[in-house]
Amino acid sequence: MIKVAILGATGYTGEELIRLLSTHPETEIKMLVSHSTAGTPIDEIYGNFRNVCNLVCEELDIDKVASTCDVAFTALPHGASKEVIPALYKKGIKVIDLSGDFRYNDVKVYEQWYKDQHCAPELLKEKAYGLCELHREEIKKTNLIGNPGCYTTCSILGLAPLVASGKIDNKSIIIDAKSGVTGAGRGLGIDYHYSECDQNMKAYKIATHRHTSEIEQELSLLAKEDITLSFTPHLVPFKRGIYATCYANLKDKASYDELIKIYNEFYKDEHFIRVLQNGKIPQVKDVAGSNFVEIGLAVDERLNRVVVVSTIDNLVKGASGQAIQNMNLMFGLDEKTGLEAPGYYL
Amino acid sequence: MIKVAILGATGYTGEELIRLLSTHPETEIKMLVSHSTAGTPIDEIYGNFRNVCNLVCEELDIDKVASTCDVAFTALPHGASKEVIPALYKKGIKVIDLSGDFRYNDVKVYEQWYKDQHCAPELLKEKAYGLCELHREEIKKTNLIGNPGCYTTCSILGLAPLVASGKIDNKSIIIDAKSGVTGAGRGLGIDYHYSECDQNMKAYKIATHRHTSEIEQELSLLAKEDITLSFTPHLVPFKRGIYATCYANLKDKASYDELIKIYNEFYKDEHFIRVLQNGKIPQVKDVAGSNFVEIGLAVDERLNRVVVVSTIDNLVKGASGQAIQNMNLMFGLDEKTGLEAPGYYL
Amino acid sequence: MIKVAILGATGYTGEELIRLLSTHPETEIKMLVSHSTAGTPIDEIYGNFRNVCNLVCEELDIDKVASTCDVAFTALPHGASKEVIPALYKKGIKVIDLSGDFRYNDVKVYEQWYKDQHCAPELLKEKAYGLCELHREEIKKTNLIGNPGCYTTCSILGLAPLVASGKIDNKSIIIDAKSGVTGAGRGLGIDYHYSECDQNMKAYKIATHRHTSEIEQELSLLAKEDITLSFTPHLVPFKRGIYATCYANLKDKASYDELIKIYNEFYKDEHFIRVLQNGKIPQVKDVAGSNFVEIGLAVDERLNRVVVVSTIDNLVKGASGQAIQNMNLMFGLDEKTGLEAPGYYL
Amino acid sequence: MIKVAILGATGYTGEELIRLLSTHPETEIKMLVSHSTAGTPIDEIYGNFRNVCNLVCEELDIDKVASTCDVAFTALPHGASKEVIPALYKKGIKVIDLSGDFRYNDVKVYEQWYKDQHCAPELLKEKAYGLCELHREEIKKTNLIGNPGCYTTCSILGLAPLVASGKIDNKSIIIDAKSGVTGAGRGLGIDYHYSECDQNMKAYKIATHRHTSEIEQELSLLAKEDITLSFTPHLVPFKRGIYATCYANLKDKASYDELIKIYNEFYKDEHFIRVLQNGKIPQVKDVAGSNFVEIGLAVDERLNRVVVVSTIDNLVKGASGQAIQNMNLMFGLDEKTGLEAPGYYL
Repeated sequence: MIKVAILGATGYTGEELIRLLSTHPETEIKMLVSHSTAGTPIDEIYGNFRNVCNLVCEELDIDKVASTCDVAFTALPHGASKEVIPALYKKGIKVIDLSGDFRYNDVKVYEQWYKDQHCAPELLKEKAYGLCELHREEIKKTNLIGNPGCYTTCSILGLAPLVASGKIDNKSIIIDAKSGVTGAGRGLGIDYHYSECDQNMKAYKIATHRHTSEIEQELSLLAKEDITLSFTPHLVPFKRGIYATCYANLKDKASYDELIKIYNEFYKDEHFIRVLQNGKIPQVKDVAGSNFVEIGLAVDERLNRVVVVSTIDNLVKGASGQAIQNMNLMFGLDEKTGLEAPGYYL
Repeated sequence: MIKVAILGATGYTGEELIRLLSTHPETEIKMLVSHSTAGTPIDEIYGNFRNVCNLVCEELDIDKVASTCDVAFTALPHGASKEVIPALYKKGIKVIDLSGDFRYNDVKVYEQWYKDQHCAPELLKEKAYGLCELHREEIKKTNLIGNPGCYTTCSILGLAPLVASGKIDNKSIIIDAKSGVTGAGRGLGIDYHYSECDQNMKAYKIATHRHTSEIEQELSLLAKEDITLSFTPHLVPFKRGIYATCYANLKDKASYDELIKIYNEFYKDEHFIRVLQNGKIPQVKDVAGSNFVEIGLAVDERLNRVVVVSTIDNLVKGASGQAIQNMNLMFGLDEKTGLEAPGYYL
Repeated sequence: MIKVAILGATGYTGEELIRLLSTHPETEIKMLVSHSTAGTPIDEIYGNFRNVCNLVCEELDIDKVASTCDVAFTALPHGASKEVIPALYKKGIKVIDLSGDFRYNDVKVYEQWYKDQHCAPELLKEKAYGLCELHREEIKKTNLIGNPGCYTTCSILGLAPLVASGKIDNKSIIIDAKSGVTGAGRGLGIDYHYSECDQNMKAYKIATHRHTSEIEQELSLLAKEDITLSFTPHLVPFKRGIYATCYANLKDKASYDELIKIYNEFYKDEHFIRVLQNGKIPQVKDVAGSNFVEIGLAVDERLNRVVVVSTIDNLVKGASGQAIQNMNLMFGLDEKTGLEAPGYYL
Repeated sequence: MIKVAILGATGYTGEELIRLLSTHPETEIKMLVSHSTAGTPIDEIYGNFRNVCNLVCEELDIDKVASTCDVAFTALPHGASKEVIPALYKKGIKVIDLSGDFRYNDVKVYEQWYKDQHCAPELLKEKAYGLCELHREEIKKTNLIGNPGCYTTCSILGLAPLVASGKIDNKSIIIDAKSGVTGAGRGLGIDYHYSECDQNMKAYKIATHRHTSEIEQELSLLAKEDITLSFTPHLVPFKRGIYATCYANLKDKASYDELIKIYNEFYKDEHFIRVLQNGKIPQVKDVAGSNFVEIGLAVDERLNRVVVVSTIDNLVKGASGQAIQNMNLMFGLDEKTGLEAPGYYL
């Protein structure tokens, strides 16, 4: 059994790690670390864990984590991860970081978009970017994962085959993305107050959201050239889900059949990626609660433009599920282990 | 592996049976029966099953069901079940019926509340009422289960310890119950239209809802006297969940501690029943998506009245999860098999 | 034109006062008082007021309020109102208080349920309890209104005809009440976080909610005897609305027709109260956004029990709309002025 | 008083016409026409109208409409309007049509996008396109209004100043639009079933939605050249609101300040259009329930692209409110009459 520690156990990605690992056949959660709730059993914080997991949250003790556990998931706020991970990493245990701190290849990009100095830039070379479908072999070999963001996972997987194909004008990419409210986490804020948030929607951080840079990094790798793109996030009144509607101009005319074939081929061995056929368009409820991604596309022939639509559960494939998929790869397990449950639908 | 057929596979309880069985380690779904969608793969109807289950729905063929499967779940409308089940039952396979047709001990009660003549009253003696926590031994021995209703499961389990204790005035019982919208099923109706249903709530069928009679049957057994009670269902704008607020007058003064001890004792060996301590009151999100039940209580000392609050997921413990729990018992498996996932919370 | 000040303008009842008064033909809002946002235009806080009202919030200055305005609505937290109102009242302007501070006839009841000492008990004799349908004449004569609570308005109006009729056992009253989330106000709290609150419901403060005492005061007056009753509030995931399901044992047998006639008679001159006929049961969306109350009832003949269902918009008839109805009465206007808009329905 | 008939009174736009007209000081509703509910009082269909409007729905009688009323709002399905309107129009009364039948200048565009032959193409020359802010003078002079669609109103008003300014590449326009569920009307459908629709979102009719052609017609007029653009509608789980996120490439570099000044100037006399300043981004709740439009914008300097965000209530400014605004203009009233109420916010 793989022994697991979760740092930042009481945020939503922490909750999802516990939820998913509670039915994972090859893991045992040994430690839940949470400064703010140290001393409290997790099932008093999240009642869904009563009779399932009653571990008591504890303060961070890096020696204890390293001596007790094989892997640590760090579900800490951006900035906090990079203070803790170098010490953990040096102890030799595997670390999967769900923050933005270890996702970048170029520390300057991180520092520019996160407006924060990085204290362990040397680790950025050791890490693998944990988007399993694109970096599987690197993930298997590393001890440090920068687990991708939710918007980024959805956007990159939606656009990857198209960008790799060279069929689009890379300067024309626009991603109009919508997120459920759990993406904002458990912290209180007037924007997430039920009475302010339900029956409402709005765009935010237009042209300035951090995930823009992460999407650009990965699509640039696929394109083998620098890509700059427009990214607009929206807050939408449902709990789970990212929905990305992506636009790009086609270099030459291309039919739906031609493009869908590119997607089918690109993802033909990917269990978690479901490319919809026959013009079918994805919807959030088909993936919510699961590690699956759904992708569909349409061609706007009048404008020679392609529209790709992609959806994931932000907390699962966009965070904790993908983190476990990474763990499975790092420990030589079948990538699907513990992640085969279908979405909730209802 | 237990070979399973689901009749009425495309309703919501059918969908939940597939969802839950897809991670059950001891079953294999062999047949999905649905007249209206015969010929269509289930994952075209419920997209969450893509890459999980792609069985094609088929017309009912009783011989085929009986020769292919060990157990049939009948998730058919009330009235339709009783037309099909006698033939299935005679073939010797186990049948778990999710309709109201085989829940009653007295056919007259059924006929009065369902305003329908029963065509197989002799089977009512063969059946077990599938409320596992109260009828476990009978369930293990029968081949026919009348799987309880959603409101009834929640209400009976909430009140059982109190009624069995003899501490309340049985004439004073009032159940004010609230249901999520999935309880109304997948059929269209103006009341379940999003624009009519969201931001709204209402009571319906006050004093006339069928589940009243089912609750009375079971509580009367526990009380060893006939109980008549008030039951008011409400439609509330969330998807999953039953929430029952139950009132009864105490015969003599009794403290919270005294009453909670009765509950703790009554349910001390029950994995799926979580009695909340220290005055904690249940909430829907702690059980939604799971087979768990949460129960809490309060004593209104000024009035010498007890208020018991109970909550379940209507589609899981209130239908498909409980049906699987019954199946586990009938096949000698650990009752918890395939049902250990915690609730969704988010 | 009646010159109006709103103290506590930036809470939800403040917002609703501004929303409703903005189309009231006989009023002019002169001052918006809010300590926390002094200096900010109201339409920066509530964007719906852009091009409608751009008054700048200001600090409280009692002399200025009294010299500028004819009436002050105090939409302050419980406890804060009673610190401010004596001074305002002495200046001779009319005061309509939306807190719990001036609703009680007996200061001891206030102090017991609010666990706070009252600093102006002498004003309790001057005030009228602002439930217009029951205290219209007193309201016309006073300069100080204790505007009723939301749960209380809904519960009292639902039960008043029955209690006044003497047909029920006053010891058997149970009120199972459900509130939309705006009832909790604009303050942040984990229970009102969208991700925690949507798709959830729960009871709270069973047998201990303050509104219990307010309902008892008014029903006791109608019954001409002391009434003690059970009151259970629930938080339900919609924005606006109170839904009260009330139970009582009938002293003697009584038919639906007999009881509905009592309601029709009791409310025959009341514009804002709509008694539903022919067994129709109220629903929240018919009153949300409006000052109307809907009441329906059912008789449970098997148990000789009556079930009364009542619904209002908590922010309108349960707070700001009723406050304006009181103002209309105090200034000799038609009670309906500015309050005739129908509910939103959608 | 203007005497009003509403044809198609029981759909959602019919309901909103009644709701808004019930507080309009210059109108009197004389006839509600609805084939399917003829004989039923409107307040039995929409309970919010009890004590507000109890007109009985009746069958269509064109002579009666023309002899009784000054104006008819036709809130009929697309295709049905054009069968009725020629007869009404000939009788000389004013007609405001909320369907798509009389919105086009070129009958061929209608027939291509609606896949239906037009039976009264000659009336297209008589009609005014009822987007008040752009066609005010024509509206004042005509007896026939083609009232704009919801997506189109939001999109056109969002982009109009920019297109008129000549600052963008007209071939680069992309509109990513999101609609609340009331936009789909009251008809039943699995996509609008609460349990299928809540907690879900999806795009639909990508590159093929009819409103595309209507937006193109109006923007082409402003650009004085033919515009073809991408339009993607999405169904989002709230009741009221359209939210359009519009993208276009700037021909030359332009700052936020420069562009916002263009908007401020373009809409400087428009009461219902609120251009947000200082980078503020609109949100649905600020306009829901009202006739207001909110527009904000951002410049993506890295890509020299502008993002315009626009929001309206689909049932008010996107349908019935705008229809009343048109009526006001046609009858020489102040355009704002009866439409001054602020949005609901809550």
